[in-house]
Amino acid sequence: MIKVGIVGGTGYTGVELMRLLARHGGAKLTAITSRKEAGMPVSDMYPNLRGLVDIPFSTPADAALEDCDVVFFATPNGIAMQEAGALLAAGVRVIDLAADFRIKDVTEWEKWYGMSHASPQLVAEAVYGLPEVNRERIRGARLIANPGCYPTAAQLGYLPLIEAGVVDNTALIADCKSGVSGAGRKAEVHTLMCEAGDNFKAYGVSGHRHLPEISQGLANAAGAPVGLTFVPHLTPMIRGIHATLYARLTKDVDVQALFEQRYAREAFVDVMPAGSTPETRSVRGANTCRIAVHRPQGGNTVVVLSVIDNLVKGAAGQAVQNMNLMFGLPEDQGLGIVPLLP
Amino acid sequence: MIKVGIVGGTGYTGVELMRLLARHGGAKLTAITSRKEAGMPVSDMYPNLRGLVDIPFSTPADAALEDCDVVFFATPNGIAMQEAGALLAAGVRVIDLAADFRIKDVTEWEKWYGMSHASPQLVAEAVYGLPEVNRERIRGARLIANPGCYPTAAQLGYLPLIEAGVVDNTALIADCKSGVSGAGRKAEVHTLMCEAGDNFKAYGVSGHRHLPEISQGLANAAGAPVGLTFVPHLTPMIRGIHATLYARLTKDVDVQALFEQRYAREAFVDVMPAGSTPETRSVRGANTCRIAVHRPQGGNTVVVLSVIDNLVKGAAGQAVQNMNLMFGLPEDQGLGIVPLLP
Amino acid sequence: MIKVGIVGGTGYTGVELMRLLARHGGAKLTAITSRKEAGMPVSDMYPNLRGLVDIPFSTPADAALEDCDVVFFATPNGIAMQEAGALLAAGVRVIDLAADFRIKDVTEWEKWYGMSHASPQLVAEAVYGLPEVNRERIRGARLIANPGCYPTAAQLGYLPLIEAGVVDNTALIADCKSGVSGAGRKAEVHTLMCEAGDNFKAYGVSGHRHLPEISQGLANAAGAPVGLTFVPHLTPMIRGIHATLYARLTKDVDVQALFEQRYAREAFVDVMPAGSTPETRSVRGANTCRIAVHRPQGGNTVVVLSVIDNLVKGAAGQAVQNMNLMFGLPEDQGLGIVPLLP
Amino acid sequence: MIKVGIVGGTGYTGVELMRLLARHGGAKLTAITSRKEAGMPVSDMYPNLRGLVDIPFSTPADAALEDCDVVFFATPNGIAMQEAGALLAAGVRVIDLAADFRIKDVTEWEKWYGMSHASPQLVAEAVYGLPEVNRERIRGARLIANPGCYPTAAQLGYLPLIEAGVVDNTALIADCKSGVSGAGRKAEVHTLMCEAGDNFKAYGVSGHRHLPEISQGLANAAGAPVGLTFVPHLTPMIRGIHATLYARLTKDVDVQALFEQRYAREAFVDVMPAGSTPETRSVRGANTCRIAVHRPQGGNTVVVLSVIDNLVKGAAGQAVQNMNLMFGLPEDQGLGIVPLLP
Repeated sequence: MIKVGIVGGTGYTGVELMRLLARHGGAKLTAITSRKEAGMPVSDMYPNLRGLVDIPFSTPADAALEDCDVVFFATPNGIAMQEAGALLAAGVRVIDLAADFRIKDVTEWEKWYGMSHASPQLVAEAVYGLPEVNRERIRGARLIANPGCYPTAAQLGYLPLIEAGVVDNTALIADCKSGVSGAGRKAEVHTLMCEAGDNFKAYGVSGHRHLPEISQGLANAAGAPVGLTFVPHLTPMIRGIHATLYARLTKDVDVQALFEQRYAREAFVDVMPAGSTPETRSVRGANTCRIAVHRPQGGNTVVVLSVIDNLVKGAAGQAVQNMNLMFGLPEDQGLGIVPLLP
Repeated sequence: MIKVGIVGGTGYTGVELMRLLARHGGAKLTAITSRKEAGMPVSDMYPNLRGLVDIPFSTPADAALEDCDVVFFATPNGIAMQEAGALLAAGVRVIDLAADFRIKDVTEWEKWYGMSHASPQLVAEAVYGLPEVNRERIRGARLIANPGCYPTAAQLGYLPLIEAGVVDNTALIADCKSGVSGAGRKAEVHTLMCEAGDNFKAYGVSGHRHLPEISQGLANAAGAPVGLTFVPHLTPMIRGIHATLYARLTKDVDVQALFEQRYAREAFVDVMPAGSTPETRSVRGANTCRIAVHRPQGGNTVVVLSVIDNLVKGAAGQAVQNMNLMFGLPEDQGLGIVPLLP
Repeated sequence: MIKVGIVGGTGYTGVELMRLLARHGGAKLTAITSRKEAGMPVSDMYPNLRGLVDIPFSTPADAALEDCDVVFFATPNGIAMQEAGALLAAGVRVIDLAADFRIKDVTEWEKWYGMSHASPQLVAEAVYGLPEVNRERIRGARLIANPGCYPTAAQLGYLPLIEAGVVDNTALIADCKSGVSGAGRKAEVHTLMCEAGDNFKAYGVSGHRHLPEISQGLANAAGAPVGLTFVPHLTPMIRGIHATLYARLTKDVDVQALFEQRYAREAFVDVMPAGSTPETRSVRGANTCRIAVHRPQGGNTVVVLSVIDNLVKGAAGQAVQNMNLMFGLPEDQGLGIVPLLP
Repeated sequence: MIKVGIVGGTGYTGVELMRLLARHGGAKLTAITSRKEAGMPVSDMYPNLRGLVDIPFSTPADAALEDCDVVFFATPNGIAMQEAGALLAAGVRVIDLAADFRIKDVTEWEKWYGMSHASPQLVAEAVYGLPEVNRERIRGARLIANPGCYPTAAQLGYLPLIEAGVVDNTALIADCKSGVSGAGRKAEVHTLMCEAGDNFKAYGVSGHRHLPEISQGLANAAGAPVGLTFVPHLTPMIRGIHATLYARLTKDVDVQALFEQRYAREAFVDVMPAGSTPETRSVRGANTCRIAVHRPQGGNTVVVLSVIDNLVKGAAGQAVQNMNLMFGLPEDQGLGIVPLLP
């Protein structure tokens, strides 16, 4: 039984990790920290876990995280980079669900995240935890940079085209829409029900932190820099990301076959039949990415539709998938949840 | 492996049964009927089941339901009463998720449901499938009348008070609120997103079909008729029922202890600590009923708050719970789903 | 042209006052204060007011409120009681949309609101601004205590029964449901879209501040104390209150006629035909209270359904109605907005 | 007073026309037809109109539409083309809110709409009712083809760029999102609250009827055909369209100034300050189109964000704006409604 710790478990990725771990079978939550809520039973904050998680939040000092086999950081950006080193030194593996280790270019990271990086040497070591790209490296990793939600949906949607070299990589357009849980559980005005409900808007048009992360992943696949316009939007639902991805074909390929071949052996990527339009709710609560690919009017513009649950394949589920790989468990252990529809 | 058939599987209780059976482990779906959609793969209608349910809808004639061990009717009212008899005669057990066998007084049933009953003799045999009341009888039953959604929430909330004889049974008030999925997947104007969304209303104030069902259950517990005012409301969410139940105490009892004792051994009823207010989302996707009990200002009016997921404990989950009992499986097999929050 | 000031205009009652005043025709907004946002154009925070409100928020010191004819307090509780006195002394009329002057029994107020009252002498003078009860006194008032949202819906629903003396006033049950805007625009976790959306719950069961306000109003109508159980609920919509009110008839009266007669001359109370179930959206954005009255199964329990828009008839609209009365304008000036449906 | 008739008034554009006409001041609704609901008071179906619209639905035969000054068709596609001719011959002006007269190329229209056109000669006469383009021709028109909702948002967003000739017209990408009311009030499964709520999806990717309409308008502005990829999406809200429009700049212009100049004299187009992200709710219930224009990272891709209320500027409001122009009234008469926020 893998002993699991969670740092910063009061947010939505924290409760989602607990939901998945509660029925995992091969991992046991032994500590969950929250400075602010230390002493409060987890299930007082999250009654869906009543009878399933019987430990309280604890202070980092009391959590004995160094006795865990793996620690998940479900913290704001900038925490894991300060604490991961000591855990790694104690032989604990670390999966960071925040962004501290995602961008290899530390200068670029510091520009987008507005702080100095506390552990640049760990950035080099960290493996970007997108199993569909880095599966073998994840198996051997000590430190995982778990991908962001938009980056997961966008990269899985673009990769078959870019790896095959069939689109113009200099003019990619990713128009993405996220449910409100992507903004977390912080008390903020713009995610109040009366602000975000029955409303739709773009945000971060001039530059969003997930832009360099997506660009880095696509550039790795292309072997050259890419040109990407990324516009995120807030849509009035709780869970789900829908990425609508545009590219110009430079070769006349069977895009449906291309996608089906690329993901034929991937348990968590479902290429839908030609003509489909995936719904975010079709993956609600599950670790699946569903994709459909179109060429409207048979032209040269290819449109990829890629949906995930931002809290699962876009965060906690992918983190558990990475843990499974790191510890030699079946990749899908604990992730067999059927999407909740309606 | 129990062989399971579903009649009329295109609605929300049908897809919910499939969601639960897909991971049940002790039961296998062998046939699902829909006259209208015969031939269509189930997962074309419900993409959340892609890779999990690989059979198509079939006509009743092709379904070979008589080879099943158990058949669920997820049909409109009035179907099961016509077809259950033949299945029972073939040795198949039947669980009706509609209302055909819920009301023991056939005349009363015919008044509320507006049709003649096709199998009054089966009404007498049918066991009302509320395990917290009828567990032993369910184990031996051939035919189960699976309770309605409001009746499940309301009865579980009232039973401790009525069984203990501590309230005035002649003046009960059940103010209940349901998410829209309770109305099913029929194309109707009043459940369109633009009609039911961002809106709240009562309906059926002059008389709702669940009134006689609740009254029957409470009268059985009381050993005498009860006086009940039942007002259902439609609330703009997808899943969930919240029953707010009022009664006047006739004895000064510790209501918290009363509820805790009544449900101490029930896996699917969670009595929350004093002062709690259960949220519908805390049971989303799960077979749990969460209950809190209050005496505002310490007075003689007791207020019970009872929440369920109408599609799970209020329909498909309770049906699987009944199946487990009927076939000697652990009562909670396949029902260990953690509620999805947020 | 009436010169209007608003104190504390960054919340939902503030923006709602501005929406109504922008097209009022007889009143002009000359100052709106916010310590925190002083200097920011109002329409930067509320882009729906672009081109309609061209002043910025100002500090109280800069606002010259004493030059206004009337000042609305759209502030948290406890502010108006400190500032109203000076304005009244300067000849300015005051309408408080918070609770400072609603409860005549100052001791009771202090118990529920958890603070000492700064101006008990003004409590005595203040007129409770429910025009359907106090119209003539409002016309002559200097200081208005604008009613709360739940109290408006509940009192208008109960008054015909209580004034006529036809129900048992000792056992009233008000089961009320509010949209999330009733909680205001503060950054708080429980009103985030991911907490309040797709969810339903009760709150304040052990005691809500609107309980003494409703009880006071009903007691005034009855000429004696009343016994009231009040359970508020949060429903996942933005605007709207639905009060479901229960009482036991002590006389066999024609309740439909009773309600129609009581409100025959009220422009903002619409008694719907017998058998109706008012929807909250039918009053969205408007100053109307729609009411239907039922006797389920012809029994002695009367059920009143009363809906308002909590930000209009439950707050800003009623405040404008009071202003119109105080300044001798047509009572409905600026309030002819057609409800927005869908 | 203009005498107004509405054909097919039971849908959302019908009720929206009535909402606007009820407070217009210069127009009076004299007839509204519905074969199915003839005899039913309008306010029975739409209680928001109680006390405001006191006529019932009538059959076309009883409606005496030929006595009206103007008739709005709020009907499904294919009705107005059969009935407009007779009304025009009787001297009645006609505004069609459906698509019958929007596409000048009748063959193209027949391909997209799947029927033969009944009045091709009227197509030539009809004026496309986008006042920001065709104001003078609208003033003199007998027959108006009121624009579609997506086409209004997309054209107003693209026009400044295309009229100025500063973008590559061959590779336009319009990623558009609509609230559910755009699908109308028909009883259909895909717009049920349980299907469209808490969910996001694309649709019509292979070809949507608004594509040729947008292309026609942009081609007129460009003086040459354009290449457009148009992907509509359904977002879980009631009202609102958000168009996210992409183009590649071919000249280095000040796009902010370009938009501000183009719409400087337009009452219903609001160009927001640089850096803004318009919200759909900021135009809820109003006839305004709000636009912001961005060049992410200062590059050559220009991103235009354009929001409207699909039922107002995208349908009924624009129709009233056209009526005002046709009858020499102030263009904004009856359209001064302040958007409802929150």
